[in-house]
Amino acid sequence: MTEPSKRDRVVIVGAGFGGLAAAKRLARKPVDVTIIDRRNHHLFQPLLYQVATAALSPADIAAPIRSILSDAPNVRVVLDDVTAVEAEANRVDLASGTSVQYDWLVLATGARHSYFGRNEWATNAPGLKSIEDAVAIRRKILLALERAETETDRDRRRALLTFVVIGAGPTGVEMAGAIAELARRAVSRDFRSITPHCSRVILIEAGPRVLPAFSASLSQTAANALGDLGVEVRIGAPVRDIGAGYVQLSDELILAQTVVWAAGVQASPAADWLNAEHDTSGRIFVNPDLRVAPHDRIFAIGDTANAAGSDRRALPAVAPVAKQQGQYVADVILRRSRAPFAYRDYGNLATIGRSKAVIDWGDLQLSGFTAWLIWSVAHIWFLVGFRSRIGVAISWLWNYLTYQRSARLITGDIAPAPAKPQELQAFERKCA
Amino acid sequence: MTEPSKRDRVVIVGAGFGGLAAAKRLARKPVDVTIIDRRNHHLFQPLLYQVATAALSPADIAAPIRSILSDAPNVRVVLDDVTAVEAEANRVDLASGTSVQYDWLVLATGARHSYFGRNEWATNAPGLKSIEDAVAIRRKILLALERAETETDRDRRRALLTFVVIGAGPTGVEMAGAIAELARRAVSRDFRSITPHCSRVILIEAGPRVLPAFSASLSQTAANALGDLGVEVRIGAPVRDIGAGYVQLSDELILAQTVVWAAGVQASPAADWLNAEHDTSGRIFVNPDLRVAPHDRIFAIGDTANAAGSDRRALPAVAPVAKQQGQYVADVILRRSRAPFAYRDYGNLATIGRSKAVIDWGDLQLSGFTAWLIWSVAHIWFLVGFRSRIGVAISWLWNYLTYQRSARLITGDIAPAPAKPQELQAFERKCA
Repeated sequence: MTEPSKRDRVVIVGAGFGGLAAAKRLARKPVDVTIIDRRNHHLFQPLLYQVATAALSPADIAAPIRSILSDAPNVRVVLDDVTAVEAEANRVDLASGTSVQYDWLVLATGARHSYFGRNEWATNAPGLKSIEDAVAIRRKILLALERAETETDRDRRRALLTFVVIGAGPTGVEMAGAIAELARRAVSRDFRSITPHCSRVILIEAGPRVLPAFSASLSQTAANALGDLGVEVRIGAPVRDIGAGYVQLSDELILAQTVVWAAGVQASPAADWLNAEHDTSGRIFVNPDLRVAPHDRIFAIGDTANAAGSDRRALPAVAPVAKQQGQYVADVILRRSRAPFAYRDYGNLATIGRSKAVIDWGDLQLSGFTAWLIWSVAHIWFLVGFRSRIGVAISWLWNYLTYQRSARLITGDIAPAPAKPQELQAFERKCA
Repeated sequence: MTEPSKRDRVVIVGAGFGGLAAAKRLARKPVDVTIIDRRNHHLFQPLLYQVATAALSPADIAAPIRSILSDAPNVRVVLDDVTAVEAEANRVDLASGTSVQYDWLVLATGARHSYFGRNEWATNAPGLKSIEDAVAIRRKILLALERAETETDRDRRRALLTFVVIGAGPTGVEMAGAIAELARRAVSRDFRSITPHCSRVILIEAGPRVLPAFSASLSQTAANALGDLGVEVRIGAPVRDIGAGYVQLSDELILAQTVVWAAGVQASPAADWLNAEHDTSGRIFVNPDLRVAPHDRIFAIGDTANAAGSDRRALPAVAPVAKQQGQYVADVILRRSRAPFAYRDYGNLATIGRSKAVIDWGDLQLSGFTAWLIWSVAHIWFLVGFRSRIGVAISWLWNYLTYQRSARLITGDIAPAPAKPQELQAFERKCA
């Protein structure tokens, strides 16, 4: 800022759960806040898989950052990309060529997919981090069903009707369950030549069980629930290779047109900006008060940070951690807190599908319809904005009552299938 | 189809208002129907401008063609592009390399933009025909506001805050009103450096008045209502040239980053497929029973056809004409009708903005809040599907009560503004 100001200037990079929580806590306080994001919207990532499976519209789970903060005259929102942090000059450089001065800097830049060094897999196994990702995956899933409807070759049709999800953390489990509900049930009456309930959905996990962050018994409950939905679960099955139309495991070649990556994330390049120490996932090691040594006035929070929990292990990369860290950092800046950051764990939730979810509250473990209801209410509650809450609640009620999906749109150019001169088949339904 | 069938095979190309109306009328009748569209969704085009101006989500006004027709086992939906019609072989060829045989063919392929021979204008002045168009225009409008927020050059900021709509038919008028409401009011509290109500919205019309299909007095009412919203109307102002960042009129150069084309349409290439006689807009001249001479069993309907009305002038390219023609053609195929097609005109509606609309029922003319309420109810009524009706009704109620917009998303890559090294300005608001 060019004008002299006695108020501290706080720059927040990233308007995910962490950055937004910090900005909200600093709203209408005696500091000047600039929050920078490369998107104009805050995204409620936990429900992104529902956009990818046509249950919700993008706007249901994304709200303009400006609107969220419009009541805070001391907060300015900037749509731009950070290219560098000049820590000695207390300055952040932006892609547009502009720069911003700070007294305090909060790095809340989140994470992106990691293919463990096999970035060439990204083309055939897209991950799920942004609205664009979700719309692209939705398009892939829906187009595969469309192509299968007119495909006369048995093997090609089978590959079109095979959907693979890699990684059985909450996102992978939710994704696999939602694809099964979409491809095997929601569209079942809409096709004439294929029978969508013949679709195969395969969830692949390198580790020994699904939902490793949950208790072993809830893992088993989740695996059973996935089975009920028709999802085939492969555990202890590391992926060897992914290419156009296939996934290679150690002992099995799966032919599938649609593959979704939910196996790993990598922190965004904030560590590089500061040349800071980081773990193998790129997360910056932070002090107990979330500062990035040796900088006194730079914090890293959320998926950008590797912060030790009370058990000395890194806190998980989940929304509640990011939110609490954002609020904590704001309190430090406002000199309201001197204690180290302490994460308050409210437990783990994951949903598998219609009326199926698991909740791990340590002593109390829940599954089934009750868990699903709690999961649903909690997610609506945590959505940003009254409008989104109504929209999502109505969509879910609709989807629940009708078994339909609200947002079954294929957008973007429709690439025609490869030419194969033939006549379209008559109305006959067959499996495989 | 490869299997012998005694039932007539009807092929419908296009699932817009006309094609869908025909398919619905033929549902569960003793004919085999194949409806081909390059999209998986039927689009309620009259509300597309609301997607372009962030008031509605794409899924609110688009429903999967398969879902709409899922209850009709005799109707098959094919996602593909038609490349040719072989009238002598009674065959339609598709981009995927497949083909479909017909006994009856209904061409309902709609229209696209026409730049009157200046196709190079399309880049800088996109038109509004598809979901992709609408999302791209929404992105343009919202990005212009974002860029203006950080732009320090006065002239560039002014160009970013100038929005031009070309063509003052219903789409142009509705678009201009909606942009004014979005850019001058809905986002007004969200920016810090710019004052969105300084935005200029300019509606350009080559002809002598806005809404030429309406009575002169309603035209005047609409022009006044546009003025109330802050839209500058230029009538009798043909566009000479459009380039990156400007629109050239005979006597004025308008510098504007965002230009929307709503001036002309051109029928899709159905006429070429048949080598049929067509008007200058590419619409096929059809017989009074909508057949395309000399073919006995090929019909053209909706925006694809030039059908004479009772006054011998071509019927307008509007949804009610297409719908009635689709139903009529189905009746002809079912041998329920032998009379020539007669269009029943229920009048003209157009909305300008919040509480402002005009209705032309010939003898009865309405404007203002009552007209707006009727317009709103009519559009919700004509939406396809209960889910869409609820979604749109709630979005509109929300937008009306809060002055906000539900779907203010910028999606796609965020191209950074051209580099211009400088410091971001402090919090100061200024006009122009």
